[in-house]
Order: sequence, then C-alpha cells, then structure tokens
Amino acid sequence: MTYQDLRNNIFSKKSYLCVGLDTDPALIPECLKNEQYPLFAFNREIVDATAKYAVAYKPNTAFYEACGTEGWKQFEMTVAYIKEHYPELFVIADAKRGDIGNTAKRYAKCFFETMDCDAVTLAPYMGKDSIAPFLEYKDKWAIVLALTSNPSFVDFELYTGNDDTSKPMYQRVIETASEWGTTNNLMFVVGATRAEMLSGIRKFCPDNFLLVPGVGAQGGTIAEVAAAGFTKDCGMLVNSSRGIIYASKEDDFAEAAAKAAAKVVSEMEISFK
Amino acid sequence: MTYQDLRNNIFSKKSYLCVGLDTDPALIPECLKNEQYPLFAFNREIVDATAKYAVAYKPNTAFYEACGTEGWKQFEMTVAYIKEHYPELFVIADAKRGDIGNTAKRYAKCFFETMDCDAVTLAPYMGKDSIAPFLEYKDKWAIVLALTSNPSFVDFELYTGNDDTSKPMYQRVIETASEWGTTNNLMFVVGATRAEMLSGIRKFCPDNFLLVPGVGAQGGTIAEVAAAGFTKDCGMLVNSSRGIIYASKEDDFAEAAAKAAAKVVSEMEISFK
Repeated sequence: MTYQDLRNNIFSKKSYLCVGLDTDPALIPECLKNEQYPLFAFNREIVDATAKYAVAYKPNTAFYEACGTEGWKQFEMTVAYIKEHYPELFVIADAKRGDIGNTAKRYAKCFFETMDCDAVTLAPYMGKDSIAPFLEYKDKWAIVLALTSNPSFVDFELYTGNDDTSKPMYQRVIETASEWGTTNNLMFVVGATRAEMLSGIRKFCPDNFLLVPGVGAQGGTIAEVAAAGFTKDCGMLVNSSRGIIYASKEDDFAEAAAKAAAKVVSEMEISFK
Repeated sequence: MTYQDLRNNIFSKKSYLCVGLDTDPALIPECLKNEQYPLFAFNREIVDATAKYAVAYKPNTAFYEACGTEGWKQFEMTVAYIKEHYPELFVIADAKRGDIGNTAKRYAKCFFETMDCDAVTLAPYMGKDSIAPFLEYKDKWAIVLALTSNPSFVDFELYTGNDDTSKPMYQRVIETASEWGTTNNLMFVVGATRAEMLSGIRKFCPDNFLLVPGVGAQGGTIAEVAAAGFTKDCGMLVNSSRGIIYASKEDDFAEAAAKAAAKVVSEMEISFK
C-alpha cells in the first residue's frame, strides 16, 4: 500500500485505528472453541464487525506460533481473509524480526510474498542488514522499534553512554534508520505510554508514520498521543488490542468489539476538524 | 538441558559444534525435492549424518516461515525428530524474538511447551520484560544477542553516545542481562567475526556460554574463537550452517556434511588437550 492510499483511507474514514489481533485461545468466547479454526473464526468475526472503524489490523505472530502449525495456518488465513475482503485495509505482521541479511531476506519473503502483509515490525539491534531487505519491496513497509510501551524500555532504549547529553539509543535508531528508507516505506514504533516524549521525537522525525501501541490496557490515551504526534497527513496508526477484541468474552464479543472500536474512533474525530 | 549435561556432552564428544539448519528449498538436492516434506527430509539426513560430531542444532525459523504453514510444520517436525532420536543434543530455535511481557510469554510457550527446544535466541532491544519470561522455565535457556556477526553490527551494538570511553551497547546488554539470569539459563550471541573482541568480553562475562555464529561462510575461524573465549567448562557453542549443510548439493550431501562436521570438530581437538 502506498503512503497516499494509507493517508486517503485515514482521512476518508476519519480514523487512524489499528486493531491488534492478539488472539489467545484461552480468551476467545466458548461459542467458538469447537470451531475447526477457532482463532481464525474469532478474527473473522472481529474484522467483519470492526472493519468500518479500523484502517489497519495487526496480528501478533506470538499468539499464533504458541499454537504450533495450526496456529500459523490461522495467522495466514487471517491475513488472506482481510486482504480478500477488505483490500483497502493495512495489514501489519507484528513479528519484531531482526537477523543478518540472508535471513532477513527469508523473513521478508515470508511476510511479503508467501503472505501479502503490507508491513512487518522489526527490531533494530543488528543494524541496517536486518532492515534493508524489507525496504526493497515496492509499496511494503518496515516498522522499526524505537521507543516501546513496556516498562523495561529504560534498559537499553534510553542508553546514552556516560554522557547524559548524548542522544538516547532510540533517537540514534530513528535518525540512522531514516537514512535507509523514506516516509513511503518506513515507520517507527513509539508507545502511547511515552506520549510526553512524542513531541520531542517529532522534532527529528517530523513526517514518518508512527505505529503507536499502548493505548487502553497499557495506559496511554488518544488525546495525548494525537496532540503530540499528529501531522498534516496524520502520521500515525494507534493500536488497540485487548481493549477492543476482548471488550466482551461472551457471545456478543463482535458487537462489543465494534462498540469499543467506534468509541476509540470517536475520540479521534477531533484530529480531523 | 542443564549446564552440567551440556558441559558433559561437550567434553565426552570433544566437540562444541552447533550445526545451523538454515534449510532453503532452493538449495536442497534435487533428489529430495519430490518428498512430501523436503525440508524435514533434508534435515533428518543431515542430523543422522552429523549427530556424532555435533552437540547442538540450530534451526533458523526464517527459512521455515518463508515456506508458510508447511514450512512451520517441518520446523516442528525437525525439533521433534532431534529430541526423539538424539535427546542428548541441544536444540536452539534461532528465532531472535523480543516483545513486551505478555507477548514474550507466548513465544516462550511456543518454543518451550508447544515444541521442546532447549533454547531460543532473543533480541534485547526492549529490555528485561522481553527476556524474563524465557528464564522462568527450568533447564531452558535464553540466548541474547550481544555482538553479532553481520557487517552492520556497528550501527547500534557499538553505540557509546558522545563519549567514546563509555561502555558500548553490547557490553551494556551483557552486563545488564547477566543480572536477570544465571550461567545456567543465559547465553549470549557473539559472532566469530569479532574474535578480537571476544577476549575483551571474557573480562566482564567470564563464565556464560556464548553462541558463536559466523565461522565458515562469514569468515571466522575456530582457532581464533577458542583462543579468545574458551573457559574451563568450554563456555561456547560454535555454529556452522552453510559450510556444513551445503557442503555438497548433490546426492552425497549427507556424507559431505558429515565430512565437513568432522573437519570442524578436528579443529576443536586442541581445546581439549
């Protein structure tokens, strides 16, 4: 998907909501547990119910891998279902891969050829070799971890060496990786729980789209994030996973997910006025 | 597998060879391409031919994921085959995962419960949350990226901020992560192409096992690595992937792999004198 298509979808829907499909077999409703493909059945219902609110979906590979081959199959089925029925929606494989060049090529093949994901999340630790193969695909995106939403982001992402006035590691990552890609194929992950740091990031990363997890269950708010990071082209995808897909654990889960998604999107309205 | 069992296997075999199963459908011999499960068939032959030389195997998840669900299935079959037929061998899922706590738990479940791997490689960028769930499993191992073998290791792993006398990021990673685990459940990845830096690493990381990729195709040598990093308990697993598994691309591939593995192990002999 191109930058312009993504931007246009966002402005026509007045939404920058990404729904995270962290689908856990222990948390899906009882009524789905006897399905042949329960994770896929759950995802299909969630997607059908929320597609008019969301601009992106983000299946998290860990939840599918934990179920083995049957889980991986349902991950593939989910991506294929979205791309078949809602081709205008942006699909992110939340995989956080990162490896040497010849291996990174295989991961890129996995997510961009074997599957038809639009983007994949990547860990920057190993440097350019581990990111560049993803940037070679036309209209596909690399989404590089920068400042994450988890408590232990302090361990390495803020590292400055001995000199506290040095750029912290996450800034080094954003500035360095920005030289490898463009605003048309490179996004960064910046957690909503770091909204106070987002306006600082916009000083050295004014235009790239940001994938912003951590709204809802992890504590960030849409208003804070939008105030700090919204650009003329929106420039962000705000993810909510558990707050939407597990809004109800009963038979009405899809309807409840739609209501939760609608509520998040209503909070986004102000960004488009 | 316990530290003591791993150490004892190494000393009884006089080998610290790990064989990397980077199994690429385009590179396996023609004679296997019509098998129902060609990647597994290749791995089974390689393992049977090299098991008397190796102490560990390291399937690389990217190569299986690139083949979709059928690839993932053959990854699982490979791990199950090794654990069934050679339970004394150490199996590393080379997955380089790293995510927030609730997701890291799912990856740990994948590799340590759904499968029976002994260890998994992990990226440190997101900090303790992303590593700790793997350390909660008895007799399982987290192998954390420190100083990798690829050319772009310089981008972030050597970061010191403004002050060149600061500890570089990889040292910060090793020292910090060492507080989360013990020598019984935590290893680090240090590339063989960085042998000149290995003796420096042994000053602040004297005892942990190191997983050392980059021998062979990537340019490092056993002698350099052993001279710099061998401990009283060996303290290293040296990986070779392409140099062994693709020693021949003809029908004699398994025999050629055994010869290549035997040659590497012969270079290790000096470490046990």
